[in-house]
Amino acid sequence: MAELPRSPITVLGLGAMGRAFTREFLGGGHPTTVWNRTPGKDGELVAAGAAAAATIGEAVRASRLVVVCLLDHRSVHEALDPVAGALEGRAVVNLTSTTPDEARELAAWAKGHGIDYLDGGIMATPDMIGQPPASLLYSGSRTVFDEHGPALRLLGSADYFGEDAGLASLYDFALLAGMYLMFAGFSHGAAMMRSAGVPAAEFAERAVPWLTAMAQTIPFGTTAVDTGDYTTDVQSLDFNKAAVDAIVRASRDAGVGLDAIAPVKALIDRQVADGHGAESFNRIFEGLKPVSAPPLG
Amino acid sequence: MAELPRSPITVLGLGAMGRAFTREFLGGGHPTTVWNRTPGKDGELVAAGAAAAATIGEAVRASRLVVVCLLDHRSVHEALDPVAGALEGRAVVNLTSTTPDEARELAAWAKGHGIDYLDGGIMATPDMIGQPPASLLYSGSRTVFDEHGPALRLLGSADYFGEDAGLASLYDFALLAGMYLMFAGFSHGAAMMRSAGVPAAEFAERAVPWLTAMAQTIPFGTTAVDTGDYTTDVQSLDFNKAAVDAIVRASRDAGVGLDAIAPVKALIDRQVADGHGAESFNRIFEGLKPVSAPPLG
Ligand SMILES: NC(=O)c1ccc[n+]([C@@H]2O[C@H](COP(=O)([O-])OP(=O)(O)OC[C@H]3O[C@@H](n4cnc5c(N)ncnc54)[C@H](OP(=O)(O)O)[C@@H]3O)[C@@H](O)[C@H]2O)c1
Ligand SMILES: NC(=O)c1ccc[n+]([C@@H]2O[C@H](COP(=O)([O-])OP(=O)(O)OC[C@H]3O[C@@H](n4cnc5c(N)ncnc54)[C@H](OP(=O)(O)O)[C@@H]3O)[C@@H](O)[C@H]2O)c1
Repeated sequence: MAELPRSPITVLGLGAMGRAFTREFLGGGHPTTVWNRTPGKDGELVAAGAAAAATIGEAVRASRLVVVCLLDHRSVHEALDPVAGALEGRAVVNLTSTTPDEARELAAWAKGHGIDYLDGGIMATPDMIGQPPASLLYSGSRTVFDEHGPALRLLGSADYFGEDAGLASLYDFALLAGMYLMFAGFSHGAAMMRSAGVPAAEFAERAVPWLTAMAQTIPFGTTAVDTGDYTTDVQSLDFNKAAVDAIVRASRDAGVGLDAIAPVKALIDRQVADGHGAESFNRIFEGLKPVSAPPLG
Repeated sequence: MAELPRSPITVLGLGAMGRAFTREFLGGGHPTTVWNRTPGKDGELVAAGAAAAATIGEAVRASRLVVVCLLDHRSVHEALDPVAGALEGRAVVNLTSTTPDEARELAAWAKGHGIDYLDGGIMATPDMIGQPPASLLYSGSRTVFDEHGPALRLLGSADYFGEDAGLASLYDFALLAGMYLMFAGFSHGAAMMRSAGVPAAEFAERAVPWLTAMAQTIPFGTTAVDTGDYTTDVQSLDFNKAAVDAIVRASRDAGVGLDAIAPVKALIDRQVADGHGAESFNRIFEGLKPVSAPPLG
């Protein structure tokens, strides 16, 4: 049996990501049309079989699936607004990093123009695209996700979170926030160790297995966060306050900047001051969560 | 061949930790003498074979190895100062949480009284003591560590870092700082997800593997930190600044408190403002490290 012909795909934006996407689509057998604002970035891709479009309008008309990967929200509007008419009836998968509200705004804009809109977040660097650890998060049009899932899976694992176009970015940013704080925590610890002449490489040998083990304990605290019942019979906030106060003292003694650790102390102190010292550490969530958060479903 | 008799051990402090220690020493066959400031905490341990000392002096004289686990630095002095004479020539292993400078002060005090002093940090909760994941960090007298290592290993894995009595605490606190910041990062992410009604338990299903994977990347950044050469051809601080600025914007949009994420932005912004936008994220270490840090050996 002959293989079915693969559907055409258009890629708008030939930065590091757009180029990596194009290589994977071509590798998967999809006729791929490319466009970039500044010409001259498509040479290698055309050699690999991509069709170069002279204008963005031409690029858009070449495929029913248009994958967009530009700099930011504003650049997406600058590029797409002039071709909104040509996009009508097509599927746009926007993998540009945007905030959740920006993704929702683009979804509304797309809806107004009869465009099927799927938003996405990329948990990968360009060199990881197409490899197993690359993870892409999607939300918005389920129709687009279902129809074009096989093509999207060429880029990395593909998870769909729901019709709210902002959800994928929200997950993306929430995961990145966790990562940045973990990295800042490692930097803080490494700065403490430097005060005694211990290299970061040596500290990492202990810190990586330790952080890995501690990450696995995170799920045990989520029931408290989700029910709002922070009763505990193990380590209380008072206990954690004593520990973090000692870390702050030790950091100051060592001449380490308090930038990263002081806010953790402040989050704990606020809960203790509010009378929750006997409850669990996870209560710091109460000091962060949106006041107007909807109840959990 | 008959087994050698195990050496006697004295445990001062029968809080949750001291009680757990005593159980393990008894289980390992060591004649164990216990003392606690407030009487009445030794019933279960005496039933298990421990000898109860009527006074701390009597407790100290019962063994050449005296393991101390009290509340804090001050309580160690309150308990030990009056029996300094009786401690002369004995080994004190202090597993009370203290700051590195407090541990160094105790080591100096011990030296002044002819006491062999080993300091330690406990990376475990009391119920973990004696189980494989329990890790205890030691520094100070190598003689004490070498001589009593087998007994100390009954409590959990035992690592020795050097003669500086403050090193074990420094490692302890540096690791805890990393953990607290990672947990704060998870809380921040969970608060973002709550804005869209996603439970923390659901977020954790993604966050745990993600943080685990990102923790494994930490060693790749340590050469830059240790050499001070932050040149990079992958993601620059400018790139990270754009990402963190977007996370801050999205957090604000979602009504999430900026307490945990704003300091990471500030650490990045400072490096970018100082002209290091093209260098790597690890440069935030430069904003944290002690100004007077000794050069790396
Ligand atoms: N690189 C990563 O590791 C990574 C990871 C996750 C997510 N992302 C996200 O993926 C997206 C693309 O990243 P990248 O690494 O490919 O960036 P990049 O290499 O800097 O490429 C940026 C692309 O955006 C285009 N562009 C910028 N402003 C434009 C405008 N006003 N109109 C039309 N095109 C415009 C650029 O075109 P010109 O050539 O004309 O300037 C270029 O093609 C970003 O949102 C980024 O945050 C990247
Ligand atoms: N629990 C953990 O998960 C954990 C983990 C790592 C490290 N640690 C550290 O281990 C140490 C002990 O913790 P723990 O959980 O056993 O604490 P705990 O259950 O609260 O016990 C504290 C002990 O300190 C004694 N104490 C307090 N002040 C004293 C004083 N001035 N003179 C003599 N004794 C005094 C108490 O005696 P009384 O009965 O007379 O009050 C009690 O025996 C602390 O430094 C803690 O930070 C604990």
